Amino acid sequence: MAHSRIKHILQAGQPDDPVTIQGWVRTQRQAKRFSFVEVNDGSSMAGLQVVVDGTLPDYEAKIKRLSTGASVEVSGTLVESPGKGQRVELKASDFQVVGESDAETYPLQKKRHSFEFLRTIGHLRARTNTLGAVMRVRHACAMAIHQFFQSRDFLWIHTPILTASDAEGAGEMFTVTRFGLDQLPLDPAGKVDYGQDFFGKPAYLTVSGQLEAEIMALAFTNVYTFGPTFRAENSNTSRHLAEFWMVEPEMAFCNLEGNMDLAEAFLKFVFGQVMEQCADDIVFFNQRIDSSVLATATNIIDSEFERLSYTDAIALLEKADRSFDFPVSWGLDLQSEHERYLAEDYFKKPVIVTDYPAEIKAFYMRQNDGEPDDRKTVAAMDVLAPKVGEIIGGSQREERLDVLEARIEAAGLPKEDYWWYLDLRRYGTVPHAGFGLGFERLVQFITGMTNIRDVIPFPRTPDNVEF
Amino acid sequence: MAHSRIKHILQAGQPDDPVTIQGWVRTQRQAKRFSFVEVNDGSSMAGLQVVVDGTLPDYEAKIKRLSTGASVEVSGTLVESPGKGQRVELKASDFQVVGESDAETYPLQKKRHSFEFLRTIGHLRARTNTLGAVMRVRHACAMAIHQFFQSRDFLWIHTPILTASDAEGAGEMFTVTRFGLDQLPLDPAGKVDYGQDFFGKPAYLTVSGQLEAEIMALAFTNVYTFGPTFRAENSNTSRHLAEFWMVEPEMAFCNLEGNMDLAEAFLKFVFGQVMEQCADDIVFFNQRIDSSVLATATNIIDSEFERLSYTDAIALLEKADRSFDFPVSWGLDLQSEHERYLAEDYFKKPVIVTDYPAEIKAFYMRQNDGEPDDRKTVAAMDVLAPKVGEIIGGSQREERLDVLEARIEAAGLPKEDYWWYLDLRRYGTVPHAGFGLGFERLVQFITGMTNIRDVIPFPRTPDNVEF
Repeated sequence: MAHSRIKHILQAGQPDDPVTIQGWVRTQRQAKRFSFVEVNDGSSMAGLQVVVDGTLPDYEAKIKRLSTGASVEVSGTLVESPGKGQRVELKASDFQVVGESDAETYPLQKKRHSFEFLRTIGHLRARTNTLGAVMRVRHACAMAIHQFFQSRDFLWIHTPILTASDAEGAGEMFTVTRFGLDQLPLDPAGKVDYGQDFFGKPAYLTVSGQLEAEIMALAFTNVYTFGPTFRAENSNTSRHLAEFWMVEPEMAFCNLEGNMDLAEAFLKFVFGQVMEQCADDIVFFNQRIDSSVLATATNIIDSEFERLSYTDAIALLEKADRSFDFPVSWGLDLQSEHERYLAEDYFKKPVIVTDYPAEIKAFYMRQNDGEPDDRKTVAAMDVLAPKVGEIIGGSQREERLDVLEARIEAAGLPKEDYWWYLDLRRYGTVPHAGFGLGFERLVQFITGMTNIRDVIPFPRTPDNVEF
Repeated sequence: MAHSRIKHILQAGQPDDPVTIQGWVRTQRQAKRFSFVEVNDGSSMAGLQVVVDGTLPDYEAKIKRLSTGASVEVSGTLVESPGKGQRVELKASDFQVVGESDAETYPLQKKRHSFEFLRTIGHLRARTNTLGAVMRVRHACAMAIHQFFQSRDFLWIHTPILTASDAEGAGEMFTVTRFGLDQLPLDPAGKVDYGQDFFGKPAYLTVSGQLEAEIMALAFTNVYTFGPTFRAENSNTSRHLAEFWMVEPEMAFCNLEGNMDLAEAFLKFVFGQVMEQCADDIVFFNQRIDSSVLATATNIIDSEFERLSYTDAIALLEKADRSFDFPVSWGLDLQSEHERYLAEDYFKKPVIVTDYPAEIKAFYMRQNDGEPDDRKTVAAMDVLAPKVGEIIGGSQREERLDVLEARIEAAGLPKEDYWWYLDLRRYGTVPHAGFGLGFERLVQFITGMTNIRDVIPFPRTPDNVEF
């Protein structure tokens, strides 16, 4: 007999269709002559209403084992539903409780639970409406990302997690070792002898795959990474994770404008796909979590993103008819309040700010030509969105060997660590550009979820590494 | 002007089509009146032949800057090619050298290089025919995997890299810390005080996402992981990496038979897709790397996999008309030579061996019912392929709380670490099953590449963490 996923039954099932479903009990009302059981299999927000007739064999014994969280297998026929909000329901001809769920101890009772509490039961929280919807949206996002790049002939590149160097020179890295920390081998000088470690030298968890993605862009033209990255920042906020997924496209023969075009098309596509694939989940978020979710999506999909230079952005902020907590002045970085003013209040749509002061940006960003020394800028871009601020950061990369060498020296980085990165500028260098997007922030943005710990299956933060 | 990827031009370009291409010079023959330049942009094995006419402005100056590895941008018109092996070539009307490549020092000269040497230039090796083909096949494989699961309503789940527990109890894990190893904080007893570390306890790199995937399967029915995993094994072989990607589907309401069906359909689909998407690359592997590549693919795609129990496999091996280096006896694990005998010599096609002795398999595998105590088996399965041996390992999972608890105790594992894993059997437990596939071994299998270090962009092995 055909097993069916509930999503498809709710979408396409017709009265008299025979079906078998398998899933978990969300709610149930028992009576002597009938019981109503809502079964969910995770394929959609809505479950399927099952009607169990009291005349079925062993009815009483089976119903006794039935409770929220129990797993069941039901066969029967679809019938038109007299209830509101559902087209069909399932009249059971066979009903089996597969695994019980003790009503006394099962942590997910019908009442509402706080997200804080749900984090303590990370092994069960995906069975709730909200976390279930988050995971489906997360999946749809991830698939849309692959689809977007696939349709443009980008190769998905798996850049390494383990690395010997700090890609951005920003520190905040986790150390990886094969040593037992209680018995570190020391060298004659009494220092840890990394030569005896697994890699023969100190190793870390990557903070970005960009530099390796550049290697691959200079062989395959268009590539992207989509994988985990790490920050050992001791930040206990609703926007930080120690382990998170990042998307980093990198394009050869591409300048800042091409980069902006890609970022804009990318966001529009992903939002569009999620609205289409997860319509019910998004409606749920709009009703229960953040009533601006649908409007935000429409804004992203329909608006032409505003594009302006950092210098123009500073001028706008200086003229703003409101005060800011942080100072506004050419040369200082934009703070979240500034970014949100631009996107939310002034332009009321996504904004791409470009050409930031070189001083406040990473060494690999391309220096703009023909500028006065005191106002040197780089071909950087940040995509700012209403409500969330920066969602994408990127740049054209410095492709000129001499300029890049000077920048590395000026940043005080060890040039010898970058020998291969410099080689890319020695042999067949080309203008190239790319950006980075924090995947969990995108999921937060789409769902309106307040805490980033609730948009990743198993969050890692200071003191949290459970499950 | 439209930029075009060379792959599409070679497939669909017509004489008189105007195109602009960008890429890197693979070979070139210069002459006073004409030069021939083969340009590759990484989109396909084949490059596009460009004819540069000596009458173009600055011809001599430009040609002087031209060498292998240089980047170029060329505009012109397609013309029918008089040469063999290509339908069209590009008659340049504009030709620019974007980035030079010093012929004296560029490490990738026309001659053949050993794979060992190429590993030392990981930043350039993707520009060679073989590594380029590997990366395209790797990408096609990865996309086929997503497509396969997507079409069956599986959710892609990002299981955590950082973990506090050893999922399989097999050891061989990397430790992750925020401590500076030269200044470890000690507790009063003189031991490392992990309470002060980032996670407040020891943390490791995951060896498998299976246990977390089970959590998600019991909420969404069908899920899969596809991400990096780690083994701190000091194995310097052509089949081991310290960091590699793994694919792990997990299905609720599924038994060993469903698991076998999925594994077989999965391999057939992925091979089929790669043959279709990367036909030229596969032909190259068959010609240059391993002349059995095409036959292997056909064998996987067209054969119905043989299925037999471990007990029957042992009987076959005992009757084999050849001798083995390792002993054959019920209760001992199958060695590579045994696996290859079954798949390669006896059945001449992929074989799924099931129901292994419980003693030699992991604690979470489901114990088979009704067996004598001295021949207890578990519902495990290994998919063995001709030439490579084990390619997939999986099992039905133990869903019965009491049996699982006994198995954890018997394995000497700390039961308290598995509190959440046991909860999954307390609340709505269901028969469920899944398998694991080493992604790089699959890419090796498809391409015939001998060394696993050559099928991942940046291999990590003992003493190797460069790039």
